[in-house]
Amino acid sequence: MAKAKKQPRPRAETPKGFRDYFGAEVTERQAMLDTIAGVYRRYGFDPLETSAVETVESLGKFLPDVDRPNEGVFAWQEDEEGKRGDWLALRYDLTAPLARVAAQYRNDLPFPYRRYAMGPVWRNEKPGPGRFRQFYQCDADTVGAPSVAADAEICAMLADTLEAVGIERGDYIVRVNNRKVLNGVMEVAGILDPDDPSKHEAERGIVLRAIDKLDRLGPDGVRALLGEGRRDESGDFTKGAGLGEEQVDTITAFLTARDAAASDLSSGKVTLTPGSMFGGIFDKAGAQDLYEVSDRIRELQSSPMGRHRLQNHATLAKLVALVEPSETGMAGLEELAQMADLLLSQGYGPDRIVFDPAVVRGLGYYTGPVFEAELTFEIVDDDGRPRQFGSVAGGGRYDDLVKRFTGQAVPATGVSIGVDRLLAALRAKGRTGGSDRGPVVVTVMDRDRMADYQAMAAQLRAEGIRAEVYLGNPKNFGNQLKYADRRNAPLAIIQGADERDRDVVQIKDLELGARLAESASLEEWKSQPAQFECPRAELVARVAERLARE
Amino acid sequence: MAKAKKQPRPRAETPKGFRDYFGAEVTERQAMLDTIAGVYRRYGFDPLETSAVETVESLGKFLPDVDRPNEGVFAWQEDEEGKRGDWLALRYDLTAPLARVAAQYRNDLPFPYRRYAMGPVWRNEKPGPGRFRQFYQCDADTVGAPSVAADAEICAMLADTLEAVGIERGDYIVRVNNRKVLNGVMEVAGILDPDDPSKHEAERGIVLRAIDKLDRLGPDGVRALLGEGRRDESGDFTKGAGLGEEQVDTITAFLTARDAAASDLSSGKVTLTPGSMFGGIFDKAGAQDLYEVSDRIRELQSSPMGRHRLQNHATLAKLVALVEPSETGMAGLEELAQMADLLLSQGYGPDRIVFDPAVVRGLGYYTGPVFEAELTFEIVDDDGRPRQFGSVAGGGRYDDLVKRFTGQAVPATGVSIGVDRLLAALRAKGRTGGSDRGPVVVTVMDRDRMADYQAMAAQLRAEGIRAEVYLGNPKNFGNQLKYADRRNAPLAIIQGADERDRDVVQIKDLELGARLAESASLEEWKSQPAQFECPRAELVARVAERLARE
Repeated sequence: MAKAKKQPRPRAETPKGFRDYFGAEVTERQAMLDTIAGVYRRYGFDPLETSAVETVESLGKFLPDVDRPNEGVFAWQEDEEGKRGDWLALRYDLTAPLARVAAQYRNDLPFPYRRYAMGPVWRNEKPGPGRFRQFYQCDADTVGAPSVAADAEICAMLADTLEAVGIERGDYIVRVNNRKVLNGVMEVAGILDPDDPSKHEAERGIVLRAIDKLDRLGPDGVRALLGEGRRDESGDFTKGAGLGEEQVDTITAFLTARDAAASDLSSGKVTLTPGSMFGGIFDKAGAQDLYEVSDRIRELQSSPMGRHRLQNHATLAKLVALVEPSETGMAGLEELAQMADLLLSQGYGPDRIVFDPAVVRGLGYYTGPVFEAELTFEIVDDDGRPRQFGSVAGGGRYDDLVKRFTGQAVPATGVSIGVDRLLAALRAKGRTGGSDRGPVVVTVMDRDRMADYQAMAAQLRAEGIRAEVYLGNPKNFGNQLKYADRRNAPLAIIQGADERDRDVVQIKDLELGARLAESASLEEWKSQPAQFECPRAELVARVAERLARE
Repeated sequence: MAKAKKQPRPRAETPKGFRDYFGAEVTERQAMLDTIAGVYRRYGFDPLETSAVETVESLGKFLPDVDRPNEGVFAWQEDEEGKRGDWLALRYDLTAPLARVAAQYRNDLPFPYRRYAMGPVWRNEKPGPGRFRQFYQCDADTVGAPSVAADAEICAMLADTLEAVGIERGDYIVRVNNRKVLNGVMEVAGILDPDDPSKHEAERGIVLRAIDKLDRLGPDGVRALLGEGRRDESGDFTKGAGLGEEQVDTITAFLTARDAAASDLSSGKVTLTPGSMFGGIFDKAGAQDLYEVSDRIRELQSSPMGRHRLQNHATLAKLVALVEPSETGMAGLEELAQMADLLLSQGYGPDRIVFDPAVVRGLGYYTGPVFEAELTFEIVDDDGRPRQFGSVAGGGRYDDLVKRFTGQAVPATGVSIGVDRLLAALRAKGRTGGSDRGPVVVTVMDRDRMADYQAMAAQLRAEGIRAEVYLGNPKNFGNQLKYADRRNAPLAIIQGADERDRDVVQIKDLELGARLAESASLEEWKSQPAQFECPRAELVARVAERLARE
């Protein structure tokens, strides 16, 4: 007998590094995206949705730690009637597509172009625990705005957004740095020659990656990576940048400027400049004369907010002393001071937004201010150890990204929120993740009366009540109630032949039943019946009443 | 001098067949997705979001008109530390991933599993006008429900959904058919042998594709494709199924059953069976005795709804006469009749849901009921010709899709709404597509006072008003107002040195200004000033007042 050849069964598995999201995981993310979009819109940003697929050429190569071509992205080559065509790839972020759009529609868009975008991005990386190859970003960018007023606005909006989604003030901090300051320090350390930026490129890459690991490795680990290299706990050796002692000292002093300033503060070695809090620094010749005690400092030190302000101020002064020889570095510090000025005048003090010389941001395209939002509360990690939650958003200025396409400089700045991480943080804090209430389940006592049961569900839905008829095999009634439980159904509706003849229905309150089963006394059982009968005509009214009560 | 090697500039272009969505295009789609999700949820469906990427093996090959491996999808091979790994691909629909999920989590999910999913899918097809390689689908499926009650529920929900998004009753029709009926007709025509389904596979493929083209080619075009073949207007020849005259007649009689029934009706040749409208047919031995005139028929014919019912009834009777020799075909008709029964008893009459023997649905995995929703109003196409809008949703039962993975039969049925086409339809009807109101634009008269302008915008936003500061080069004030116009800004705020000294702001009403410029008399200009001054302290109140008035 002829029989179709048997194929081996496919494996029912998500590809490595990908995952599925069920129920409340989906609705909570959508609710968060809606909230974020609401804040972005209020700031004047307009939505843009680009396709998931871009040409590899237009995406460019800006991912960190990526040297080989097409590494880091999922890419394939077009097959055009047998001929090989363009290389296409899944976007790895929402910024590269924006740069393409800004170039492609440069004559049609209003500039400055404020746009927000949300959606999945893909990274072809080695998956790890909690590390997925598809994740959501929610970005806002301003293209065509040269001044740091745009960067300051983005930072303020980032703080507002975090609070809007439920991260309380004090539980997050937006840390701001500037690539020009980083470049200034590397100039001072002798690994960046402004006249020939192609020199020392490899060393600078290692240095930036080392700085980025300060949180995890501490100053000593970073020092090792700046020098000869570092052997980790597993015995693996990471080759360092090979810098000399003095160079390492310069960069370490830069990184630890905040701590050094803090210790200056506590020993009373800091003073204030006239003029505005930060801008004032640049009205003076140097920073040496800042280190004196004053009454104003004592006053500031008496409040937490005041201490934050002093801390920022003193850090900036330290940095001025360090990068003064570099024009680029001083320009970066000036930008930082201007941003702080604008933010302070709108009430965004260092309790929400601070400088931090250790902020690098991995992506290769940043040219000016860079920032990231970190959650400061502790969570318990998978190994049961408490740790800081860490970064949930980042961004910065990337003035050359549109220029890649057009040859004309187009300044741009923006932020990207890692929505999945932010959701995980809220769940870890217990601020979301309540299980979804399921539908009212209409059970099936008599399979020939399916039309009657469907009519009950339809009537409930017409009143806006989530409802469904059990559609599995109705033979075993216990299975129907088990199903209702698994669906988190608040109520089950039952109408057998007897109820049908008397034109009534049974309403079983599963939520109440579960609560009573846990704790109730016999009296309570009697006074709050978890199952009751009502005329069929009153079904909708009684269900609505019960649901409102729960 | 050493200089970085010049790279050629990348082209700023979306890849062929992809597009970008701006502003209201994005928000309107999101609003539609939210509305659809609302209906699906009310019916008890829970959200699921799978990743865009699946293994090629798990996706399977069910796309229509696809023979070569990996054709129709965007696919690439994993590179695992130098070794070639799994073939991965972008999902081409949301059903194949659901089948994978139902198999993968079969011990954890509540069954029947009702889930909805929304998101982009990708097809590696030749792009054409209005035909894109990435588009949105919004699906609802029930896995584990064997009875046609589940199919009927999906059809009812589809009708509800279309009305919820703004398609009025009468502007759409859900057409229902059953693959078993199609198979029955092919058995009768001698191109399907139930004992050896591998025979005539190619012919059946051609027949199904020909039936699917009835709308476009008409009965004669389909006849040609069933026989030797068909030459189109361009002279291209499509090879036919090579069926004989009698076979072609059988299939054509099947396809035109609705029209034949309609002509029977108008010549008074139809009668009603006792019992329910459709189910009753199967209580009788055959369908021959149905064709008599009765008073009931005259009564039904006196109302449009009644005529619809008669039409459906008479069509079903015709089909019974045609497929009676085939067990499978009769089983399919019985399912259709049961579905109609359930739908009628919930008030979903043939003004919303009808049978139609010409419904095929291209995807290869359907096994029972199939359905599609068609918009019945005319639109003007790109060439200026009026045409029916056509299909916006489709679905059906696919009982073997999960079995591919597990070996165990798992019944399943569902629907997929083509959200982008539905949006295009609403736009064509003028029911959506109103331009988005832009933000209030705070202009910059003095760039050193950026902090003041940002404070104004922040105050407006704190009241929930969309507002932004102009962040382009502020030098040319005319450019700022042009920008505000392009953003669709309702109001612009102006505060120069003079206003600053008097502690006032100017509010320019751009919407009113535009209306006045179009039509107003001099009197109106005077009585409704489009620009006015108010104290700085009243800025927010006056702006809110103006916006409420517009």
